[in-house]
Amino acid sequence: MTSTALLTDQYELTMVSAALAAGTADRRCVFEVFARRLPDGRRYGVVAGTGRLLDELENFRFGPAEIDALRGVVDEPTLEWLRSYRFGGEIDGYAEGELYFPGSPILTVRGGFAEAVVLETLALSILNHDSAVASAGARMVSAAAGRPIIEMGSRRTHERAAVAAARAAYLSGLTATSNLEAARTYGVPSAGTAAHAWTLAFTGPGGSDERAAFAAQVAKHGPETTLLVDTYDITTGVRNAIEVAGPGLNAVRIDSGDLGVLARQVRQQLDDLGATGTKIVVSGDLDEYAIASLRAEPVDLYGVGTSLVTGSGAPTAGMVYKLVEVDGLPVAKRSSHKESHGGAKRAVRAARDTGTVVEEILYRDGAAVPESAAGSLNLRELQIPLVRGGDRVDGVPTLTEARSHLARGLVTLPWEGLGLSHGDPAIGTRYVNQPEAS
Amino acid sequence: MTSTALLTDQYELTMVSAALAAGTADRRCVFEVFARRLPDGRRYGVVAGTGRLLDELENFRFGPAEIDALRGVVDEPTLEWLRSYRFGGEIDGYAEGELYFPGSPILTVRGGFAEAVVLETLALSILNHDSAVASAGARMVSAAAGRPIIEMGSRRTHERAAVAAARAAYLSGLTATSNLEAARTYGVPSAGTAAHAWTLAFTGPGGSDERAAFAAQVAKHGPETTLLVDTYDITTGVRNAIEVAGPGLNAVRIDSGDLGVLARQVRQQLDDLGATGTKIVVSGDLDEYAIASLRAEPVDLYGVGTSLVTGSGAPTAGMVYKLVEVDGLPVAKRSSHKESHGGAKRAVRAARDTGTVVEEILYRDGAAVPESAAGSLNLRELQIPLVRGGDRVDGVPTLTEARSHLARGLVTLPWEGLGLSHGDPAIGTRYVNQPEAS
Repeated sequence: MTSTALLTDQYELTMVSAALAAGTADRRCVFEVFARRLPDGRRYGVVAGTGRLLDELENFRFGPAEIDALRGVVDEPTLEWLRSYRFGGEIDGYAEGELYFPGSPILTVRGGFAEAVVLETLALSILNHDSAVASAGARMVSAAAGRPIIEMGSRRTHERAAVAAARAAYLSGLTATSNLEAARTYGVPSAGTAAHAWTLAFTGPGGSDERAAFAAQVAKHGPETTLLVDTYDITTGVRNAIEVAGPGLNAVRIDSGDLGVLARQVRQQLDDLGATGTKIVVSGDLDEYAIASLRAEPVDLYGVGTSLVTGSGAPTAGMVYKLVEVDGLPVAKRSSHKESHGGAKRAVRAARDTGTVVEEILYRDGAAVPESAAGSLNLRELQIPLVRGGDRVDGVPTLTEARSHLARGLVTLPWEGLGLSHGDPAIGTRYVNQPEAS
Repeated sequence: MTSTALLTDQYELTMVSAALAAGTADRRCVFEVFARRLPDGRRYGVVAGTGRLLDELENFRFGPAEIDALRGVVDEPTLEWLRSYRFGGEIDGYAEGELYFPGSPILTVRGGFAEAVVLETLALSILNHDSAVASAGARMVSAAAGRPIIEMGSRRTHERAAVAAARAAYLSGLTATSNLEAARTYGVPSAGTAAHAWTLAFTGPGGSDERAAFAAQVAKHGPETTLLVDTYDITTGVRNAIEVAGPGLNAVRIDSGDLGVLARQVRQQLDDLGATGTKIVVSGDLDEYAIASLRAEPVDLYGVGTSLVTGSGAPTAGMVYKLVEVDGLPVAKRSSHKESHGGAKRAVRAARDTGTVVEEILYRDGAAVPESAAGSLNLRELQIPLVRGGDRVDGVPTLTEARSHLARGLVTLPWEGLGLSHGDPAIGTRYVNQPEAS
């Protein structure tokens, strides 16, 4: 076990220290994680990271090495408290793979002030990162309209973030990842082709030798491999590929140039060579807009990297972790620009009989489930239990289940909600039965 | 030791597998890491991550668990090769904290094809992430014009990326981090204030009680603490802060609203209360532009988060790892849009006697050091040895040395190079004595 306890902002622990001294460490608190708004113009967000958070919560322990590192940061009574720290409260949350909108109470943490406040940094790091990637991925999957997408962005993000990004991408509906650690840790299907370096490495005194490179790759991996045809001239590359591998070659990859034009040319050339079953893989700075622009082209598979792992312009989901209730009293910050709704909330999403969702309704925890505006709509509770008495409950959705849940959720959006263009959230959020914060 | 070997794209290993079968695994290769361009409008980049890469290179080992995970991905001879893998080649590179420009050969890896190609993903992940953060950080430090900045972005990025981001931020000139793991692992000074939750937690049946919250914080941490004054009304917050802590209070923090206007008001109020030495800390979605806009305001310290850890609009540095030489022959991809310069390169930067840099000159490794265009300028070699025979050389700059190196480097830029506005790279890159690639 690698401790995750120091993946924490210093002020969480100095607050614990002051709370222990002041006698307020055990006040019963409710913290909520939510996003005040979606990234610019986005219609929905995708909750991701919940499973990872529950894993890392079990490793949130202050062992001897962590305690040593904190000497000088907090005092001895605080170190003593940290030494025996183990979250003992309750966590509810939106299921991983659930859609969210501004204000959605994605995670609700109940416990003593000190035991709950120290989880802020870790919870936000995981949810903000993973949700940013999954939210971008879902838009790419929509844009690909059924064609598979492989995630290959590991080299464009922090080496460990890459593993989480591959997981979030799979959750969002991508088909596979290039990242081997994500395959090992999370069982995400892995895939790969070859790099330009492969072909270039066959250069000898007589010059370049693309055919030798292709022949060596096919000799080892068979015609079910994918040959990268754009190291030199693409037309020659395609001809070499089929001559070497035969018309049964699985796929060729194009990584540069005008991908739409090249895909058409390469498709024609492949068909003329009798390689009618050979697929075309395209990659190279693709985002959801580029994917959508290739919808009419003969592309069989997309490879995406940079834009996916960096959230396609929104590299963090902007979620916050806010204290909303103390000893049963609703609380909220009151100064300018950051209005929050105090009090622990529950959430339902209203849908028509067709399944199309209409609005999200947030209501005070403990109050009766409200009626939807239209009266006869179907209401679905959005929060599920995740942790009880500090322990993960049975039945928290797996990664595969989260992936299916998202796929089902996306088809419930009003049609404009799946558009790539900038706009308002796909459904509105309504607050009912809200208390006045003290 | 946690193995870093699977933080790798699958195709690196399938290429190794095919190279072993084809007999090309040991061809002497040179790979270079460079950025084709700087992020949109940036004038310079900052090399960061080199030290982390050298650390992780030592953990790039395929142990029994990694080998087990790769069964089915590659064949038994490849597993055997991986089992005894240990990079045995040479690495040169720009010192950490060095400025870079388009084409700068930031890292040069020499070794057999297979042993060098497998390092691509890890090397790029680390350098792309850390350099993106450091490049953003350096602009913020310039904009702050001598005022200190604390990094507090951990919650806005992947939990492990946060640690590397704190390191890169410190390298770039920031003063401290909120991240406790970065303090432990890299010795970055840590700092922190308090959250709104601290004040809200003192709400009782009688309502909110900011004074009690401040009193408890000061009782524990003394007047050298920083009180967050914008949970409720800021003017009341400042009055409460000084009444509770006395005019010797170290600092107040403002986290919302129009920070410039508020800083002036709060400064006036603090001075009127006799708290002339109490500092003003501002935070809340600051980036380099917001920092610059506050230059004339009475701000003593900035806290930055989101924009720093996400590279302020450029979350990845866009570096690539390209094969440039095989058995002494220069190689380069020739198809459209991605022209590369083949052949291993060395780099010098030319400066006037005043120290101001004029251009960067890339020349073929092994050729004589070129003269600068202006003839009499001072030329500085940019690459230093990092790894020999697979082992880190002595004297690789420490984090502290890298931080100083960058600070010295920034003052050598032409004045327009430190501007925040979009523009061309601060100096040009010139290629001399370049070979024709095969």
